[in-house]
Amino acid sequence: MLNEKMKEYGSSPSIIRQLFEEAKSKKALIGESNVYDFTIGNPSIEPPKVVNEALIKLIRELEPISLHGYTSSTGDPATKKAIISYLNKTYGAALRDEYIYLTMGAAAGITITLNALINKGDEVIVFAPYFPEYRVYTESSGGIFRPVDTSESFDIDFLKLEASMNEKVKVVIINSPNNPTGAVYTEEIIIKLSNFLRKYEKEYNHPIYLLSDEPYRELIYDDIKYPFVTNYYDNSLVAYSFSKSLSLPGERIGYLVLSPKMENVKDVFYAVCGAGRALGYICQSSLFQKLIPYVLGHTSNMSEYKDNRDYLTKELKKLGYEFANSSGAFYLYLKALESDAVKFINIAKEYNLYLVPSDSFGAKGYVRIAYCVKKDMIERSIPAFKKLMEHYEALK
Amino acid sequence: MLNEKMKEYGSSPSIIRQLFEEAKSKKALIGESNVYDFTIGNPSIEPPKVVNEALIKLIRELEPISLHGYTSSTGDPATKKAIISYLNKTYGAALRDEYIYLTMGAAAGITITLNALINKGDEVIVFAPYFPEYRVYTESSGGIFRPVDTSESFDIDFLKLEASMNEKVKVVIINSPNNPTGAVYTEEIIIKLSNFLRKYEKEYNHPIYLLSDEPYRELIYDDIKYPFVTNYYDNSLVAYSFSKSLSLPGERIGYLVLSPKMENVKDVFYAVCGAGRALGYICQSSLFQKLIPYVLGHTSNMSEYKDNRDYLTKELKKLGYEFANSSGAFYLYLKALESDAVKFINIAKEYNLYLVPSDSFGAKGYVRIAYCVKKDMIERSIPAFKKLMEHYEALK
Repeated sequence: MLNEKMKEYGSSPSIIRQLFEEAKSKKALIGESNVYDFTIGNPSIEPPKVVNEALIKLIRELEPISLHGYTSSTGDPATKKAIISYLNKTYGAALRDEYIYLTMGAAAGITITLNALINKGDEVIVFAPYFPEYRVYTESSGGIFRPVDTSESFDIDFLKLEASMNEKVKVVIINSPNNPTGAVYTEEIIIKLSNFLRKYEKEYNHPIYLLSDEPYRELIYDDIKYPFVTNYYDNSLVAYSFSKSLSLPGERIGYLVLSPKMENVKDVFYAVCGAGRALGYICQSSLFQKLIPYVLGHTSNMSEYKDNRDYLTKELKKLGYEFANSSGAFYLYLKALESDAVKFINIAKEYNLYLVPSDSFGAKGYVRIAYCVKKDMIERSIPAFKKLMEHYEALK
Repeated sequence: MLNEKMKEYGSSPSIIRQLFEEAKSKKALIGESNVYDFTIGNPSIEPPKVVNEALIKLIRELEPISLHGYTSSTGDPATKKAIISYLNKTYGAALRDEYIYLTMGAAAGITITLNALINKGDEVIVFAPYFPEYRVYTESSGGIFRPVDTSESFDIDFLKLEASMNEKVKVVIINSPNNPTGAVYTEEIIIKLSNFLRKYEKEYNHPIYLLSDEPYRELIYDDIKYPFVTNYYDNSLVAYSFSKSLSLPGERIGYLVLSPKMENVKDVFYAVCGAGRALGYICQSSLFQKLIPYVLGHTSNMSEYKDNRDYLTKELKKLGYEFANSSGAFYLYLKALESDAVKFINIAKEYNLYLVPSDSFGAKGYVRIAYCVKKDMIERSIPAFKKLMEHYEALK
């Protein structure tokens, strides 16, 4: 009698969440310092001081009815203007105030986009391994979820992508820096993908929308110029969140911005507004919207994540582990020591290591290590990784 | 190629919003003090001081990673506990912490409920006049929208309700205090409705869910004991928002609570969690969740709204207007001076009075006056109401 799909989404929380809970129970049992929990992508670094300072300033100085009042459903005009101006300056983009929509984080940006664009049966392509909520968001918008495996180095495999193309493909989602691999797409990849999609747009005679999910955009540790998709592909949208860069995941503040060169951009923006309305979004928190102009361009102290990455990769390499190059986000994608990653993480648990199997991300044989944790936990975990390696070497 | 329904929702903003914009343009033209804008239900009274004081205290004293971090998707445990305890104490309810879900205002509570319960083709009954977004929320969840006219005194008309009942009815939405009529349902009505629905639940052999949309619950000016629906009907849910009582509409903080006696309550709650997930809600703003325990039971100074109501009704009565008894919310439902309310509001505009026709709420022959405005604007508007009455008297 209920909507069984929704019951399923609600009663089967993600494996990530389950493993996190298991690690918590284990901590209660054997002591927090003896458990190495790498399960959750939850920022461990404080927000920059400017966040709380600006919040207090706003609360003290703004007239309360306006501070806490409704904004336009697309967002506070001054906030929209500030974001657009920042993006244009930082990425050489040519975005416009009238095509940005403030959202409850990147998640809402994605659900709003899919509900705006998808008609029942349209297909949504993602690259595996992928953030598992993409499946939930696609299905619940009426779309068909089409994961396409990446290459061995976790780049887009254009042959596989080609094999998946068909007239029903409406949206392609990319996520760079990537969860779970830590890969960052280069300009070369974005250009190649843009050319590829334009070819199929002509062939099918309809737009194929490129949705770039960018919550980790500022978390890049190597010298890579970030290619902002609207500079390369007209039918593109960017979903952003301040969750990771400012360590504000619980405040749910982000935005969705459309390329002004998009085909029928006005109509698409209307559909975005309509989808926001239909899903029950009225406006993003007025206080947090008003915060944004004060914090644009600031980030938490990201060098801590870089330190973690450098230390962890150096030590794991010494132990003989193989992993993907983690240039961004705060994830290391480690090759499991047996082909079945689920079996592997269960063995790892015996050494109090909690890792997420790649099966959760639609791929085989790897685990995700979230290194947005305290450095000392990483240090304490290395002997456990050593024992885990020895465990598998003894089996040879 | 887009989702045309979403484009329609986004490109046809509500008539209320259009009239509000018209009034704004008129103000720019002839001066703010010469326009009497009664269009928008936007609180005009400051939040109680405790709100900003508690926000500053939280920002100063809580560890920032936890202050702004993810909470559980259902909400912060201490906040959920505080709300449940407050509701149980205030309304003699027997609610439980595990069946409350913090939401982005009441709107999200409604979309989440409908997406959780509705399978394509299920029917949702509302009582006309109704809040117009109910239609959008119902259609976009796949449901069929079934408005049922109320009686002449805007009570539930049980004969009409009976005529609309059929096996596909899954949800009945009530809204008391009511937007747009200002009516407050008595205990007697809630008991009668509960008995009525139970009879049909037996006949159809499936639950009929009663969803009570209660953003105006604390805005009651007459001596009416508020009947909390979970005390009367097991298959009931309450969607609440702190928008109106605390004058925080832009912060989007509210909750959805289920009767623990609901049939298969665990499964329904799973479906609620799943719908929240599928719509892109991760958690409600962590800062505003943590605010709630400090502000429960507080309200803005509601006596200002009562003063407005008392003054406005006294003066309009003197002028010969007829209207529904406005016991709550901040709306007066006034009988138009001709049968076509849209024509009537256009005549009213000639006297710089901006009123919302009942057609927007699925009903004929009335206008909504939002009296959540400054008292002096009401005072200045009375001569305009007088001229409007004279305009129609001259036509007789």
